Amino acid sequence: MSELQSYCENLARSAREASRALGRAASRKKDEWLRRSADAIRARTAELVAANALDIERAPEYGLTAAAIDRLKLTPPRLEEIAAALEHVATLPDPVGEVIEGQIRPNGLRVTRIRAPLGVVFFIYESRPNVTADAAALCVKSGNAVILRGGKEALHSNQALHRLLRDTLGECGLPAQAVQLVETTDRAAVGCFLGLSQWIDVAIPRGGKSLIERVVAEATMPVIKHFDGVCHVYVDRAADLDMALKILINSKCQRPGVCNAAESLLVHADVAERFLTRANDALQAANVEVRGDTRTRELIPWAKQVTVADYRTEHLDLILSAKVVAGLDKAIEHINEYGSHHTDAIVTSDLAAARRFCDEVDSAAVMVNASTRFNDGGELGLGAEIGISTDKLHARGPCGLRELTTYKFVVEGNGQTRG
Amino acid sequence: MSELQSYCENLARSAREASRALGRAASRKKDEWLRRSADAIRARTAELVAANALDIERAPEYGLTAAAIDRLKLTPPRLEEIAAALEHVATLPDPVGEVIEGQIRPNGLRVTRIRAPLGVVFFIYESRPNVTADAAALCVKSGNAVILRGGKEALHSNQALHRLLRDTLGECGLPAQAVQLVETTDRAAVGCFLGLSQWIDVAIPRGGKSLIERVVAEATMPVIKHFDGVCHVYVDRAADLDMALKILINSKCQRPGVCNAAESLLVHADVAERFLTRANDALQAANVEVRGDTRTRELIPWAKQVTVADYRTEHLDLILSAKVVAGLDKAIEHINEYGSHHTDAIVTSDLAAARRFCDEVDSAAVMVNASTRFNDGGELGLGAEIGISTDKLHARGPCGLRELTTYKFVVEGNGQTRG
Repeated sequence: MSELQSYCENLARSAREASRALGRAASRKKDEWLRRSADAIRARTAELVAANALDIERAPEYGLTAAAIDRLKLTPPRLEEIAAALEHVATLPDPVGEVIEGQIRPNGLRVTRIRAPLGVVFFIYESRPNVTADAAALCVKSGNAVILRGGKEALHSNQALHRLLRDTLGECGLPAQAVQLVETTDRAAVGCFLGLSQWIDVAIPRGGKSLIERVVAEATMPVIKHFDGVCHVYVDRAADLDMALKILINSKCQRPGVCNAAESLLVHADVAERFLTRANDALQAANVEVRGDTRTRELIPWAKQVTVADYRTEHLDLILSAKVVAGLDKAIEHINEYGSHHTDAIVTSDLAAARRFCDEVDSAAVMVNASTRFNDGGELGLGAEIGISTDKLHARGPCGLRELTTYKFVVEGNGQTRG
Repeated sequence: MSELQSYCENLARSAREASRALGRAASRKKDEWLRRSADAIRARTAELVAANALDIERAPEYGLTAAAIDRLKLTPPRLEEIAAALEHVATLPDPVGEVIEGQIRPNGLRVTRIRAPLGVVFFIYESRPNVTADAAALCVKSGNAVILRGGKEALHSNQALHRLLRDTLGECGLPAQAVQLVETTDRAAVGCFLGLSQWIDVAIPRGGKSLIERVVAEATMPVIKHFDGVCHVYVDRAADLDMALKILINSKCQRPGVCNAAESLLVHADVAERFLTRANDALQAANVEVRGDTRTRELIPWAKQVTVADYRTEHLDLILSAKVVAGLDKAIEHINEYGSHHTDAIVTSDLAAARRFCDEVDSAAVMVNASTRFNDGGELGLGAEIGISTDKLHARGPCGLRELTTYKFVVEGNGQTRG
């Protein structure tokens, strides 16, 4: 066995062992760990900033852009945000042990479906070091051990955060191996962990498309993943056009580089002229590049010609594809065909249209008269999230604490046998 | 594109289209289809028996054992059972549209998590033709289109059943392509469907280990699978030994060839002598081959020596591995290490022991003072099941109608945007 293989196996095996102890740890202890870690981040700010400086120093070598270097940077206010996020997770209800449902069967058996941790999570992510603390917090609070594999660009920051989190686990009497960091930057380590389904229950990749595709292709355990967000705003015939414009601009522009930003606008033909002539100025003022079909380009003369590829693309930029559709049916059809089943909004005052849109659009989140930007764990009331799943199995949409659990059936009898 | 590839693609694409219409079909229509299909099975018994006779005739060519040929056979009473099962599914609540949870957010957004169909299920199974009707019933009732790939040994029976189910779909105004049968026996077809994740949402293999391994290796979509059932009965120090013996014999012998039958017995050292000397006769009378550790063999002299491989093996036969353990800790450790996380039972009158067993045994179902044989969709109150999952993600344990669904977030606002 290679040295790398044995490093990964030892790490995964010890994560499995830690998960057993963590799975039965009281909420009080897990919350104490979260609060103590927050305190430690405040107390050890200088140490964390110094470690981060090593990453910032090396960042140009890794070809990071100025924006990426800025995201990588840990400052005292950012560390305070990380600490506050840990304290927030401590306030959320513990999902472990929740009774999902129960009944007494005709033969007297008491059957209860109870929420239980998944076990060991392998979390693979890119640059930003705050994700290290967030992911560890969510996994531990939900009773799971976590193996963290961050980007090489953030290695020193992640090591410092990991040291701190490990120290506080020990102080709270929790297994230190519950949070582990992959300290080798060898890319083969990822493949190695993805083969260890005997100890790792789920892989969660968070990052660019190529990372996710690699994880899906190589993982021998299930993967909770987040592919594209090709999100739509559909302006219905019965829309309040002021509201529609406000929602469109917010969905597209409030933060164009994220998955729940809108990429595509569909407008009912009956209101196309009124809406698009009104949207014209606002989109131009917001520096949005519009790529439209023929009808859109008649109404927004500066729009470029849209392609089928545009309809399928998550630009993550100030680019908006636009199409005038004959009606609700065509809008739903377009969304189900070209969208990525992430987040899609209708603006309408027509109850029947809203209902059909919600029923028939096959997406993780459907919005009625609200911005696509609300598909987020915090905004939807999950408290916090480890990512937004575009899968249909297990977890769909934002993944919070509950989505990091499974369940077990507990069956209590007094000697029942099967006849 | 090969002819096979284009056959599979057309079939999967039409399943996706059918799933859109089926996903919004009213319960009343789906239930009408189930009842009409039951009636049609009764009315067309002669046709079904005749088709089945063609399979029975060819069975020896396929090397089927007498027991397998018996399982393949469709008789009027068996067809009546299949019809009754369809009628039973019609009585179960429709999972689609169930409101799982909801809240109003501080900004006034109404957030609801609503159960929705998965879409298209690719179901791969072996011989018994009753599974064809069961799987179609569960998939359609939960709003999913299904692609059925049965064993070649049952092809004529499956074709006749499929014809009937397709006819009744049409009669009820439901899309006929909601239930499709793969009519080619080319094994490459399975691999071809497993590559069509753009139209198929989940693969569910039900059959031998090699089938499941193949599906897991080749599937590009998520798989709900059922591997081994290496199930344990642990007789605690505080067990009622009469009850323990009754539960052991039922778990092991009532139907030894199924996944929830016990494969392994663990006995607390303090009661080993009393329990095993008592179990001696009962196990011998039931023709159980016992493979025990040293202590077991002192108490059951005719027992063979157990191996580590025995502890890990699902024999599906009248073979029982047995071990005397120092206590509850060792029992839990053994089960988590050697078991398959399927179904494990403790017999005890000690509340603390029962609680620790339930919390710490990492299995889909944990039984207290009840037979392992109760891990079954019908017995646990799910109504019916398409299989028993040994996965932790999505569905664990029996998979009924709800486990064939996903959910979506429906977010209703009045113009909210994100600040």
